[in-house]
Amino acid sequence: MDEYKQVIIVRKDLEMSKGKLAVQVAHAAVDATLKTLEVKPEWVRNWVEQGQKKVVVSCSSESELLKAYDEAVKLGLPASLIYDAGRTELPPNTLTALGIGPAPSSLVDTITRKYKLL
Amino acid sequence: MDEYKQVIIVRKDLEMSKGKLAVQVAHAAVDATLKTLEVKPEWVRNWVEQGQKKVVVSCSSESELLKAYDEAVKLGLPASLIYDAGRTELPPNTLTALGIGPAPSSLVDTITRKYKLL
Repeated sequence: MDEYKQVIIVRKDLEMSKGKLAVQVAHAAVDATLKTLEVKPEWVRNWVEQGQKKVVVSCSSESELLKAYDEAVKLGLPASLIYDAGRTELPPNTLTALGIGPAPSSLVDTITRKYKLL
Repeated sequence: MDEYKQVIIVRKDLEMSKGKLAVQVAHAAVDATLKTLEVKPEWVRNWVEQGQKKVVVSCSSESELLKAYDEAVKLGLPASLIYDAGRTELPPNTLTALGIGPAPSSLVDTITRKYKLL
């Protein structure tokens, strides 16, 4: 069986607090998982069986995040962009994170391998 | 309709890095969501409709985390304990986080309101 993983990309340029960052990553992880469940439930099943591998990496701008999202969509990978309502640290509707998959690692890696681990 | 939320409790005493902590919170969020989907799918549906409110709080020991888990189980709330395989920062099988719900806020709050926001 292929290896499956979920990758979450967060914006480092926003300098979010530890707590804020953790919530954004969690939003991206849950939202991408629910999206994958709708279109590729077997990918979620395989991923859960393999221990739900998650990798969090960082990028340095909104445009990088949007580019990675476009690449995921073009590859047919379920992906979720996360916007923060901005009631606390950030301006309203700030794009903070992107969740991709779970999906076969060989596909996800083509998009995310250039980013550094958070 | 009731307000729904998911609460994730993480151990502050482990002094995890930002990235490690974010992954543990994401594990707890996804695992608790999948567990809730099995037993209370309508709670997940309501929570998603309301914008997936997530709150991350911290506790200061393994025993506190286990106690909160017991309380959640006694109240009938779906809850997931997260153990880290310990290949990097932590000893093997370290208990790192707990995800509760999504569930009605009035129920979750009885367990989690004593903890501070991360």
